[in-house]
Amino acid sequence: MTRPIIAYEAGSLTVLDQTLLPAESCWIDLPSLAAVAEAIRALRVRGAPLIGVTAAYGVCVALRDAANLSAAHAAAPQAFDVLAATRPTAVNLFWAIERMQAALETAPESGWLAHLEREAVAVHEATRAQDAALAEHGLSLLRSAAKVITHCNTGPLATGGLGTALGVLLLAQQRLGGLHVYVDETRPRWQGAHLTTWELAAQQVPHTLIVDGAAAPLLRSGQIHSVWVGADRIAANGDTANKIGTYSLAVNARHHGVPFYVVAPTSTIDPTLPSGAGIPIEERDHDEVARPHGLLIAPEGTPVWNPAFDVTPAALITAIVTEHGVQHGPGYDFRNVES
Amino acid sequence: MTRPIIAYEAGSLTVLDQTLLPAESCWIDLPSLAAVAEAIRALRVRGAPLIGVTAAYGVCVALRDAANLSAAHAAAPQAFDVLAATRPTAVNLFWAIERMQAALETAPESGWLAHLEREAVAVHEATRAQDAALAEHGLSLLRSAAKVITHCNTGPLATGGLGTALGVLLLAQQRLGGLHVYVDETRPRWQGAHLTTWELAAQQVPHTLIVDGAAAPLLRSGQIHSVWVGADRIAANGDTANKIGTYSLAVNARHHGVPFYVVAPTSTIDPTLPSGAGIPIEERDHDEVARPHGLLIAPEGTPVWNPAFDVTPAALITAIVTEHGVQHGPGYDFRNVES
Repeated sequence: MTRPIIAYEAGSLTVLDQTLLPAESCWIDLPSLAAVAEAIRALRVRGAPLIGVTAAYGVCVALRDAANLSAAHAAAPQAFDVLAATRPTAVNLFWAIERMQAALETAPESGWLAHLEREAVAVHEATRAQDAALAEHGLSLLRSAAKVITHCNTGPLATGGLGTALGVLLLAQQRLGGLHVYVDETRPRWQGAHLTTWELAAQQVPHTLIVDGAAAPLLRSGQIHSVWVGADRIAANGDTANKIGTYSLAVNARHHGVPFYVVAPTSTIDPTLPSGAGIPIEERDHDEVARPHGLLIAPEGTPVWNPAFDVTPAALITAIVTEHGVQHGPGYDFRNVES
Repeated sequence: MTRPIIAYEAGSLTVLDQTLLPAESCWIDLPSLAAVAEAIRALRVRGAPLIGVTAAYGVCVALRDAANLSAAHAAAPQAFDVLAATRPTAVNLFWAIERMQAALETAPESGWLAHLEREAVAVHEATRAQDAALAEHGLSLLRSAAKVITHCNTGPLATGGLGTALGVLLLAQQRLGGLHVYVDETRPRWQGAHLTTWELAAQQVPHTLIVDGAAAPLLRSGQIHSVWVGADRIAANGDTANKIGTYSLAVNARHHGVPFYVVAPTSTIDPTLPSGAGIPIEERDHDEVARPHGLLIAPEGTPVWNPAFDVTPAALITAIVTEHGVQHGPGYDFRNVES
């Protein structure tokens, strides 16, 4: 991964098209607001933090052709609306858009675009610095030669930095050594199989791919030190929305007495949301389940329920790791958290 | 399903090739011992009871060209060995082979083949009668308008009769009405998506396909009346081996206080096996996980752990339904069971 997975240079935004992994590593230009929004909606860029970074640069792409600051102000509301509508569960998206909105408010008449671009770069830098802090804090919960399970993708491909949950594991392999990561394939979209295995192979971390249903007997075997996942959204009480399948893994970790860790930047926390009951669960296209990559796995017309996320109650989470440190559960209080 | 999924007529064995479902309904002839063994190994016929029926007819196919009873006796050991080696976890396979072995011992010089064929038909009829008894007993645990979850395939395609766990649900829809069946897709081989949805559609039972990881939030929603699964092998203490993913579902059912029912004929029970710890777990090909139907979902060479089954301890099983009745857990004792 010598080439960065997201780069903004001279007004041009380029990203790795993650939908083509693991077969192809292909970078695409996103020359317009419509292209940026499509890339987020189609999961060409995904992972809550990277979506935020992409949206920040996306604001620059959307406004760069404005004749002056007034024209930029006139065009901005539609750009913010289009970007905000791409993924309703991604809090980082709104956080990044709000930073760009604030930057636009303070932009000078002369050099307004450079001002916005500096803010987008700052959003990206903040994410990288957060990842480094997350990894350092999470490291305290691991030991050398730990066997762990992870779900979905939370590595560099998800953040544009070191990653969240996987960032902890990558740093642990560097510092402590001997890690072995069991990777849930993460149906329906296979982010674990497509992306996490690719990242672990790139970093030469020993790993094994399993179907999501195989995590339970692995936990029962007594070999697993801990389970590590990210979060798309965390409520004030610590209830956590993450990729579908996370909740089942949390229930199984608890049943087997294995620690279950959530790693996420505070931008993922929504302090105004009292509990996970208020988190909207996006339902995605039926074909993700019934016709993955065009492969028909069920009779035509089979009804499907395809929630993108599920909610893991705080009571099942051993600790939540943010860039500020480790909070042990089950009693969490993020009502006054600031990101 | 007007055409039977397995038929033996005039020395010719024909089966529905289940690997081509749901896209194609294609029947194939199995003209030799090698073809029968390949069909079982390649899962063209699958499901513990149907494997037993297929093996019984397979013995007839293997021996039908023997010149006389002595020649049949000479050829039999190899036929039994080849069939027994096809699926090491399927107890029904050994039960059927033992019945055919016993029939061969008592076969008359004249009409020995017809004698064997009658025994194979009797194996098939016994399976059908068992399914009917299983369904009647299981029905007592259901109510009208129940929403249920099932895993893998346990319907007519698995037994050649009404089915085991799904047979209960099919009968419940006929007698009580209003059923809704949530079907785990059942990675890695998608038996739920490929087969169970096909059977439910054929019988016009309302159903919804979900990824295996979505069963947990469904259980948490409070809508689910009960969970129904079959078994590939049951130990004397009630520990049950079934398709990978079953154990995770059982842990989740328990966590949410939802009854978890296992439906299986007593031929599935191995009274000589004290507990599930002694059940061998078949590990299957890596490509089932990493390259399903030729679709590459992980980088080339990614290590995979692909156990075909997992073991659900008796303590998590609310009741085991056999053709003899309903046994409520968690204390099971099948040491003296006769099939």
